[in-house]
Amino acid sequence: MNTQTIITKDELLQHWLAHHNLTRKTIEKFPEKELFEFSIGGMRPFAELAKEIMAVDTPGLKEIITGEKTEFVNDKSITTKETLLKKWDEDTPLISEYFSKLPVNRLHEKFKLFGMYELTILNHVFYFIDNEIHHRAQGYVYLRALGIEPPFFWDRF
Amino acid sequence: MNTQTIITKDELLQHWLAHHNLTRKTIEKFPEKELFEFSIGGMRPFAELAKEIMAVDTPGLKEIITGEKTEFVNDKSITTKETLLKKWDEDTPLISEYFSKLPVNRLHEKFKLFGMYELTILNHVFYFIDNEIHHRAQGYVYLRALGIEPPFFWDRF
Repeated sequence: MNTQTIITKDELLQHWLAHHNLTRKTIEKFPEKELFEFSIGGMRPFAELAKEIMAVDTPGLKEIITGEKTEFVNDKSITTKETLLKKWDEDTPLISEYFSKLPVNRLHEKFKLFGMYELTILNHVFYFIDNEIHHRAQGYVYLRALGIEPPFFWDRF
Repeated sequence: MNTQTIITKDELLQHWLAHHNLTRKTIEKFPEKELFEFSIGGMRPFAELAKEIMAVDTPGLKEIITGEKTEFVNDKSITTKETLLKKWDEDTPLISEYFSKLPVNRLHEKFKLFGMYELTILNHVFYFIDNEIHHRAQGYVYLRALGIEPPFFWDRF
């Protein structure tokens, strides 16, 4: 097993923020109506997937840092593209703020998040990022099905 | 900027291999015909997305390690689910083998891969993993559209 550390805390944050920026561009590509209504195979519309990303990211980090139990719920009050993007832009700096407060020596500690998911804190962070890539990619298929070109996948470096 | 290193080389490899295992499960869920033919919005069928993952992973790592220029091409000879999974299983241990040969002190070196993409080697590795999550998620939408339940996203820990 190779235990040399290779990624700094700041590199992981920048990687996350770049993905977060690409997801924002993906939201922007959707027409208002399709953002909240279009779906394939019984899946949730992209607005609900984006809200799930927001329900995980900052509440998840906050719970890990403060230990205060948080509920894992999508924000039902968001019903327009404008308010969705507004909340997105309010949350984005909080990712940096909370992440900066995460002590490196706690990263391999197991933590039960939202009363349900027990993983190491590092694996929670990976999960937040992977979950965002996963749901955004589903948004790409929705866009293609709607005849809309998604943002370039590499347009985040 | 926080420059404390937080992820070991082995942790990143295990993270990648867990995703790779989940992608294999996703391939398995497809019926033979739909794997090679079903698509949405003019996108490639899932077999082609899986072949792209294979065209990137081990050839990419190999080029980074050896410096020998490699072509970025999908394997046209793979036309059945059985041969796709066979190649997948042959390639998987090569990810570990090549990754173990990647010197940690080269990770922040810029490298032009497949004669096209210039990123740091660490960002290439992130790209390999992210690209796999991205395309697999598109396979999830195909499966849902076909009325097939995809594997659980967390079924890799």
